[in-house]
Amino acid sequence: MDTPNPSVPPTIDDVREAAFRLDGIAVKTPLLESPLLNRKLGGRILVKAEMLQRTGSFKFRGAYNRLSRIGAEERAARNPGGVIAYSSGNHAQGVAAAAAMLDIPATIVMPADAPRIKIGNTRALGAEVIFYDRRTGNREALAESLACERRAALIRPYDDPYIIAGQGTAGLEIVEQARHAGATLDAVLAPCGGGGLIAGCALALKTESPAAKIYSVEPRGYDDTARSLAAGERLAVTPGVTSFCDALLSPMPGELTFAINSRLLAGGLAVSDTEVAAAMAEAFESFKVVVEPGGAVALAACLSGAFDCRGKTIAVVCSGGNVDAGTFTTALQGQPG
Amino acid sequence: MDTPNPSVPPTIDDVREAAFRLDGIAVKTPLLESPLLNRKLGGRILVKAEMLQRTGSFKFRGAYNRLSRIGAEERAARNPGGVIAYSSGNHAQGVAAAAAMLDIPATIVMPADAPRIKIGNTRALGAEVIFYDRRTGNREALAESLACERRAALIRPYDDPYIIAGQGTAGLEIVEQARHAGATLDAVLAPCGGGGLIAGCALALKTESPAAKIYSVEPRGYDDTARSLAAGERLAVTPGVTSFCDALLSPMPGELTFAINSRLLAGGLAVSDTEVAAAMAEAFESFKVVVEPGGAVALAACLSGAFDCRGKTIAVVCSGGNVDAGTFTTALQGQPG
Repeated sequence: MDTPNPSVPPTIDDVREAAFRLDGIAVKTPLLESPLLNRKLGGRILVKAEMLQRTGSFKFRGAYNRLSRIGAEERAARNPGGVIAYSSGNHAQGVAAAAAMLDIPATIVMPADAPRIKIGNTRALGAEVIFYDRRTGNREALAESLACERRAALIRPYDDPYIIAGQGTAGLEIVEQARHAGATLDAVLAPCGGGGLIAGCALALKTESPAAKIYSVEPRGYDDTARSLAAGERLAVTPGVTSFCDALLSPMPGELTFAINSRLLAGGLAVSDTEVAAAMAEAFESFKVVVEPGGAVALAACLSGAFDCRGKTIAVVCSGGNVDAGTFTTALQGQPG
Repeated sequence: MDTPNPSVPPTIDDVREAAFRLDGIAVKTPLLESPLLNRKLGGRILVKAEMLQRTGSFKFRGAYNRLSRIGAEERAARNPGGVIAYSSGNHAQGVAAAAAMLDIPATIVMPADAPRIKIGNTRALGAEVIFYDRRTGNREALAESLACERRAALIRPYDDPYIIAGQGTAGLEIVEQARHAGATLDAVLAPCGGGGLIAGCALALKTESPAAKIYSVEPRGYDDTARSLAAGERLAVTPGVTSFCDALLSPMPGELTFAINSRLLAGGLAVSDTEVAAAMAEAFESFKVVVEPGGAVALAACLSGAFDCRGKTIAVVCSGGNVDAGTFTTALQGQPG
């Protein structure tokens, strides 16, 4: 395998190379717009619809970019056990789908309380699923020991240059699609867990649309990136907080991702679960798409006023749509499920 | 105004001309695919996602194509009252949006029990809404007398060559997008009310993808096109039937649309409301999109077995996503609301 050096962050060239690899394989998801919502918010909101990506979230981009570097020979010699990933569900599905396409065995370590749709789809895509307890288990340690035992390659969810570069292809598409729509971006907002999506997008945007300010958005309580950006160093979340944004519950910014984000981001925003539920309902009504809680935080920042949209053109990444019907229904009633 | 001759059906040239007019104005909605659903059905299903169209349904295509023919001078002289349409809600929003873009006053006659989202959006788009009672009123007569009184142009929902040609641009896109996806279409299924969408698509497909068989899909009880196709003449629905597919409750095939459909369609299919609700839930889970009841009938035909997908490549039009949260929630639970 062409092993990435985990201490060297990727560059815009890596994002471009990823876009080349993903061409015709990942979906070029549309940039949606609602004139009525624009009028309501007094700005122009362009929604990057990553729930329409393969596996229902942006995670396929990074996973495929990473896995496509694993050559068959090297796999047989060094990683006969295929790949292992840990994930609450979206990276899981992304890795499972990419592995199936590339004919690589995949094992995924998932929290036992992950949304059923995420567990079901990961299995349906052919991966073996191993559960851990989100409250007591250390998924990273478990995945590392399994990788060692099975001689499998560990595919980290965000602290990997190929993963970050792959996610950044969404940013390249935003630039191209905004240009096509005659829009000059003032700002770009994206959900942030470990920070891979926003870091990759920031690489793309800083080169291609340098005037756009880039903001990470997190669930309140899990706003470790916002606080780390403000402090200038990586800070962990305070233990014991909860959020229904299951995709964004990472404990601390990634090393590689924070190296990029601390350099390129204008700041970090946070939203409440109730604001996220309202954003899911707005996406249902105005854009006719299904957004999962973690996928809706950036839209929530615009709707709640955490980010002031008036007079601005803003690209908002809605990063995924893997949500169970019950949680979605509750959100349509304005409540986090 | 360049008045269309209502007795002459449009041709493929009219559809191509409409595509030219709509270029950069209507959304080129994506063709979605789910590998997991394909595997489940044993075929390849390509979903034309018209809920992502402006105003949340395909109706904007025909409305804009029609209204864009109205010149300013002629409007002042012959139709100072602008345009009038009757619609359960999607044609209403399409006409309202096109009228607002073209700076034409619009009045829409709607049933009082139309989904709130359709009424609200039609008003928000700047149109005046006038209600009638679906059980006792004759919306066509009401709209005609209003058009006369106000000196406004009546924009019929389907029996108009420009409307049919506009809807057909969805068919042209299907052909182009299927080709891009490496798919050779065996069949195309689209929802059918008055028959404008399926007639326009049939014009496009018969020229560009002649081997594809084209089927209309209707709610059971409102399968007037299916029965008319079988009988070789236009038959009305039996009074008293109901369906929650509010967009497809037209009483009889259109004259112009049936002239096209009886020539080009392979047949008509019908599905139950319960099958439609299941299709809405499947679209939520597999495609992450919001489909309204009337928009989901063609997908329902594939899922229910009314159309056998095995071994085939099928384009399925999901024609709209304007549904209230309550109805959607009930559908996610498998029940028609």
